[in-house]
Amino acid sequence: MTVTAPQPLDLSHHYSYTAKNRTASSVKSFYKYYSIPGIANFAGGLPHPSYFPYDTLEATVAKPERLKPNTDADSKPDRVNVPKLSKTIDIQTRIDLTTALQYGTAEGYPALLAFLRQFVRDHLHPNVPYEGGADIVLSCGNTDGLSKTIELFTNPWNPHRDWVHQREGMLCEEFTYMNAIQTAQPLGLNIVSVAMDGEGMRASGKGGLADVLENWNFRQGRRPHVMYTVTIGQNPSGAVLSIERKKELYAICQKYDVVIVEDEPYWNLQFPSAYEMEAHARGSSGTSSRYYKKDGKSSGYPFLDSLVPSYLSIDTDGRVVRLDTFSKTVAPGSRLGWITAQPAVIERLTRITESSTQQPSGFVQSIIAETIMGNQSANSNSRVSKIREGKGWQMDGWVRWLEGLRAGYEKRMQATCTVLEDNKFFISEDFEDLPSTATDHADDWEIIDRIQMFDFVWPKAGMFVWIEVHFENHPLRSQYSSEKLSQALWIHLTQKPTLCLVGPGSMFAPTPKSLEKAHRYIRISFAPMDVEEVTPFTTRLVRGFQSFWKRKNLDGLEDDIATLDMRALQAGSTASFSATSY
Amino acid sequence: MTVTAPQPLDLSHHYSYTAKNRTASSVKSFYKYYSIPGIANFAGGLPHPSYFPYDTLEATVAKPERLKPNTDADSKPDRVNVPKLSKTIDIQTRIDLTTALQYGTAEGYPALLAFLRQFVRDHLHPNVPYEGGADIVLSCGNTDGLSKTIELFTNPWNPHRDWVHQREGMLCEEFTYMNAIQTAQPLGLNIVSVAMDGEGMRASGKGGLADVLENWNFRQGRRPHVMYTVTIGQNPSGAVLSIERKKELYAICQKYDVVIVEDEPYWNLQFPSAYEMEAHARGSSGTSSRYYKKDGKSSGYPFLDSLVPSYLSIDTDGRVVRLDTFSKTVAPGSRLGWITAQPAVIERLTRITESSTQQPSGFVQSIIAETIMGNQSANSNSRVSKIREGKGWQMDGWVRWLEGLRAGYEKRMQATCTVLEDNKFFISEDFEDLPSTATDHADDWEIIDRIQMFDFVWPKAGMFVWIEVHFENHPLRSQYSSEKLSQALWIHLTQKPTLCLVGPGSMFAPTPKSLEKAHRYIRISFAPMDVEEVTPFTTRLVRGFQSFWKRKNLDGLEDDIATLDMRALQAGSTASFSATSY
Repeated sequence: MTVTAPQPLDLSHHYSYTAKNRTASSVKSFYKYYSIPGIANFAGGLPHPSYFPYDTLEATVAKPERLKPNTDADSKPDRVNVPKLSKTIDIQTRIDLTTALQYGTAEGYPALLAFLRQFVRDHLHPNVPYEGGADIVLSCGNTDGLSKTIELFTNPWNPHRDWVHQREGMLCEEFTYMNAIQTAQPLGLNIVSVAMDGEGMRASGKGGLADVLENWNFRQGRRPHVMYTVTIGQNPSGAVLSIERKKELYAICQKYDVVIVEDEPYWNLQFPSAYEMEAHARGSSGTSSRYYKKDGKSSGYPFLDSLVPSYLSIDTDGRVVRLDTFSKTVAPGSRLGWITAQPAVIERLTRITESSTQQPSGFVQSIIAETIMGNQSANSNSRVSKIREGKGWQMDGWVRWLEGLRAGYEKRMQATCTVLEDNKFFISEDFEDLPSTATDHADDWEIIDRIQMFDFVWPKAGMFVWIEVHFENHPLRSQYSSEKLSQALWIHLTQKPTLCLVGPGSMFAPTPKSLEKAHRYIRISFAPMDVEEVTPFTTRLVRGFQSFWKRKNLDGLEDDIATLDMRALQAGSTASFSATSY
Repeated sequence: MTVTAPQPLDLSHHYSYTAKNRTASSVKSFYKYYSIPGIANFAGGLPHPSYFPYDTLEATVAKPERLKPNTDADSKPDRVNVPKLSKTIDIQTRIDLTTALQYGTAEGYPALLAFLRQFVRDHLHPNVPYEGGADIVLSCGNTDGLSKTIELFTNPWNPHRDWVHQREGMLCEEFTYMNAIQTAQPLGLNIVSVAMDGEGMRASGKGGLADVLENWNFRQGRRPHVMYTVTIGQNPSGAVLSIERKKELYAICQKYDVVIVEDEPYWNLQFPSAYEMEAHARGSSGTSSRYYKKDGKSSGYPFLDSLVPSYLSIDTDGRVVRLDTFSKTVAPGSRLGWITAQPAVIERLTRITESSTQQPSGFVQSIIAETIMGNQSANSNSRVSKIREGKGWQMDGWVRWLEGLRAGYEKRMQATCTVLEDNKFFISEDFEDLPSTATDHADDWEIIDRIQMFDFVWPKAGMFVWIEVHFENHPLRSQYSSEKLSQALWIHLTQKPTLCLVGPGSMFAPTPKSLEKAHRYIRISFAPMDVEEVTPFTTRLVRGFQSFWKRKNLDGLEDDIATLDMRALQAGSTASFSATSY
């Protein structure tokens, strides 16, 4: 009955020249010296901990039940306290400022690393098929994790210096998160987009992965050996790649020896209700089926078992590198995440970390470790030992928090999509005073006036709705190109009374080919809004579509928005939050 | 009387292909949209702040007076509290979790950035000669800052792909901090060492900077266009480069168009007493003169005015990039620092930051901002508004803290060097029971038995003493090479009763040429020790030298320590701290 697990493949032929060059660490061979009892340590250039000005680091932190309270008591926050010095000897559970604020190891703060390894190996990916399972290293979030992964697997290419046949490439979805592309593109990598459908990246068909790799034109450079993908709540499309599709794509990656970099900031925000509500709204069937049911070992939590598994769960070769982040589960400002891959890959990423970020900040590592793992015994001399400390969320609380977050965003998704679903069609002048629920009787209207302004797929996960605008149905289409109409729409929406800022589709186009189609799309995010704002704001948005469809000209809608990028929207979004109160 | 300040030079010919490729940010052109009153923000993919589990982030923090208290009250810590939401509108002074834990801008958290810009421009470098002065961007510490600076200014080189004439180079001191070199070397850069004397890098003479650049052998690749240097408390030598020497070196860098990367983790730890105590101990004169007196504008603080100024203060061309860190002034685990350079260079570094670390963690940025700038008005609804909040250190307190740190490390330096100074000579068997103060009467001894075991220069700054061991004076020198003796000494020192772990010189040798000399040195750090431990531990160390000089053979001193590296010592040092109590 025992099946021998495969060994992960040696991927070193894919390592960059630079990454191969990084020297192995000799830490382990020196343990015997620095563990000599009573040794006087003249070797390290470590500042004295008494000169760290912080005596405690504390926080008031939500109980995991806050997001779905049963009683008032559940919603009362806990106190978290990282003491200057813990009595705990075991570094796997010790959390204090004396160690967290000192130089540390690149893998991560031992206590937090131990928790995350357990979470990853036992609960998040209990079925990694290769021998020994996956390992992790902490990162400063997924942008940092991706940057290091790209440094590991690709050599920069310079057209003024190098031959075209030396150029390496990176595959990605047809529309994608451009920050990721902006990390890779300046290195001279050939960015190659793969066609998508409502589920995400396509394996077969024209422009699908098999087509792209099979018919690779070597005059463009080497066949891409790295794929960047967001499989859950894909940004911008909100798509969720089924495990069946993943298997198809994985087999193609095996055939062409492609490393899969799976970036999953939204993995816990999977929305079962989206399938059902979409099917109901559209009178369709078949799509309302629930999630993939996991083979193999259970995660130990019904919630985690309900999530579509990672590429890691089918990664017999060890060719998957997965990026996880606390940005959406705790806060983006944490700048904390982790990378999961076969141990040899993690070892190289650790070497890269030693020569760049060294480790995430000890402030965030210790406070998050204390929040989740809690229950540290503070030094009795500590001035703060009287403070009642919570026990920490523990694994159960952490998973409960993740599930609670899903519920919060799912509610926003539902409210947004309900308004969008009910307002896809232009209501001509004569009928505009009718309530929007009139579209429930769409059959009666069809014969009168039924012009579709936009369409969308209900997002099955994540924070976004990807809206395809039917500019071909706009009355001014004969006078203006759809590109022109698209720009005008974006500005129109920012104006009174609509006052909505949306993400133009061109922001998500990684290649010139994608860009040709991108202007037909906008991405909207329901995540940043207060829950009670979602319906009125989305209503304003669809009314903005209505009024745009009524325009007789595009006067006053001129601006150069061609250069809008993620950084601008991010900065703008953050700035606008500064003025808001919660 | 008005002298027009020079414009900084355009350094873009030194930018790497990758760095040039990074697209400019369009943030500014979008301010007008996201600042529209009442705009509904569907654009950014920002999580909702109510889902950040932290309601407050707090700390107990030293008053700056702790390190030099006048009264007991001075040493009582303050409470620091970062609220969930601040009422402050001005983002330059606002510090709260709603903004600090959200996505931010790569330059840094606005409040902290504003403080550091003021510190840098008005106080630390009030005399940057070029028009408009220097700008800054935050980093995740100096290893991160250096990694980004190298990415900006150098193209990786691969001998299997590229021509030798394309190979770029980096200059550094003959002995240097190897973590820095390990960042650059894997890129294929040619690491080129420059000779040093007691003051640091040499400008003239054999192996000095002029010699290296003037007589560059182009068959090795391009003449180096980047210099990595630590000018204050150089690691490992403890040297301080005078402003006069800096001017000489700068002129050479101008002649050969070299970018200077100045890494200064120890800049505030300059020790005036080292000059005097060294002169006194050695009966010399002339070296006891005090520090460089600043030309130009005062920093506003006598302490800062007393510090040898940065290369930035003579940087008419804008060719200096300076790296600063909180690692030694707050704590290494902060992983927080900043880069100072001309604005065009900072702009490129900001683009690199956007595609890698994005920004330092908001946890460390906000707690340090609150510690220093303090006095935020918390939202009155906040549950923690009752907590008495300190006013924050403010600029005066920050400078006072830096000065206090200097005093703490200076005391350790004095204690270490006093013991070393008194025990440089081997006391032969017959006289060994005499107290070590007997060397005060060294004149009487000289004729009897006076074998020098080691020598050193009193460190003028920093955390290290660089000890040159006189293996040629060892009784076993005829039987063993000095390399062999050096390895044996290192192991001997770790054994009972000495029990001292020191940094072998080879750890600081960036080139094969340096390595030839490096085995003659060890580096010891007085920083990690409790102040009362310094004298007994250093006494143990010098007794270890004595007993090594008495050895009749090297039995039991075998091990392969050739691969010892910084990471091993750092990890070991951190691990040994975990077992210590403060």
